[in-house]
Amino acid sequence: MFYDMTVVQFSKMLQNLTAILNKGEAFAQSKKIDVAVLLNSRLAPDQFNLIRQVQIACDTAKLGVARLTGKTDSAPKHADDETTLEQLQQRIADTVAYLATFSEADFNQAATQHVTQPRWEGKYLTGSDALIQHIIPNLYFHVNAAYAILRHNGVDIGKRDYLGVMPYKS
Amino acid sequence: MFYDMTVVQFSKMLQNLTAILNKGEAFAQSKKIDVAVLLNSRLAPDQFNLIRQVQIACDTAKLGVARLTGKTDSAPKHADDETTLEQLQQRIADTVAYLATFSEADFNQAATQHVTQPRWEGKYLTGSDALIQHIIPNLYFHVNAAYAILRHNGVDIGKRDYLGVMPYKS
Repeated sequence: MFYDMTVVQFSKMLQNLTAILNKGEAFAQSKKIDVAVLLNSRLAPDQFNLIRQVQIACDTAKLGVARLTGKTDSAPKHADDETTLEQLQQRIADTVAYLATFSEADFNQAATQHVTQPRWEGKYLTGSDALIQHIIPNLYFHVNAAYAILRHNGVDIGKRDYLGVMPYKS
Repeated sequence: MFYDMTVVQFSKMLQNLTAILNKGEAFAQSKKIDVAVLLNSRLAPDQFNLIRQVQIACDTAKLGVARLTGKTDSAPKHADDETTLEQLQQRIADTVAYLATFSEADFNQAATQHVTQPRWEGKYLTGSDALIQHIIPNLYFHVNAAYAILRHNGVDIGKRDYLGVMPYKS
């Protein structure tokens, strides 16, 4: 289930984010404004702007999967120097491509993996706690922040764009 | 894992939401404004206001758990008539109390449960798909929408309020 909750679902959410950003670009073109205005927007003066929200969403997915599988060194490094929509979309695509290198078997020990990061000063979360209480909520925090910034600026997006296609059965 | 991902984590997020709303109340008092201004705020004219975001977050948790466990009829009904912060907090508390009536064993069949709702017109999602692709993203969508509305209005909240306490080990 770890694989489906991370590799599969995070890839879906990042691709939904790509589509949402494309709607932002179309909105900017229709309004004859520079899309950079949207990319640098935020909901509060001390909130990260849209560019940073997308970067962190990608890193949450990338580092979450790397840490849960004990393959921390495998995560590609990014300089966080994106300034254009095209670069941001490439960042997302790189992240999705990295996620695609994992298989279900990579997560066999994920539940009991010790997940940590430098700012935790030697403390750790078990893989289960990290997934449920940290990685998933963080992923959705930054995807939703990006969504909310565009929504507030008038981009025509709704929950369907956010959720993506559902695998309904009948 | 279904139990931990829903009953346990959703209860935590709803309690974090309670704390976030309390910060909104304190902010309103410090600014000498009616908290109802915040409760009726939204980020876009066609977005649901804060009251509705909290109601839907509660319903997503309540109905998600009810449907995953096949106990749809057990979910308490709410009239969606809350207008005050106190009523909203009670709505959250009622939802958390309902979640607490479930045990891990209630989720034994959750992965293959057929999860549906009236608007899906007879179609369904498997329990696993519903949890990962619908219930969890929806829960975080509405919690984050509530958070974003308050954040945009100047309430002093950050990611720690949203994530809550982490069960770090050392």
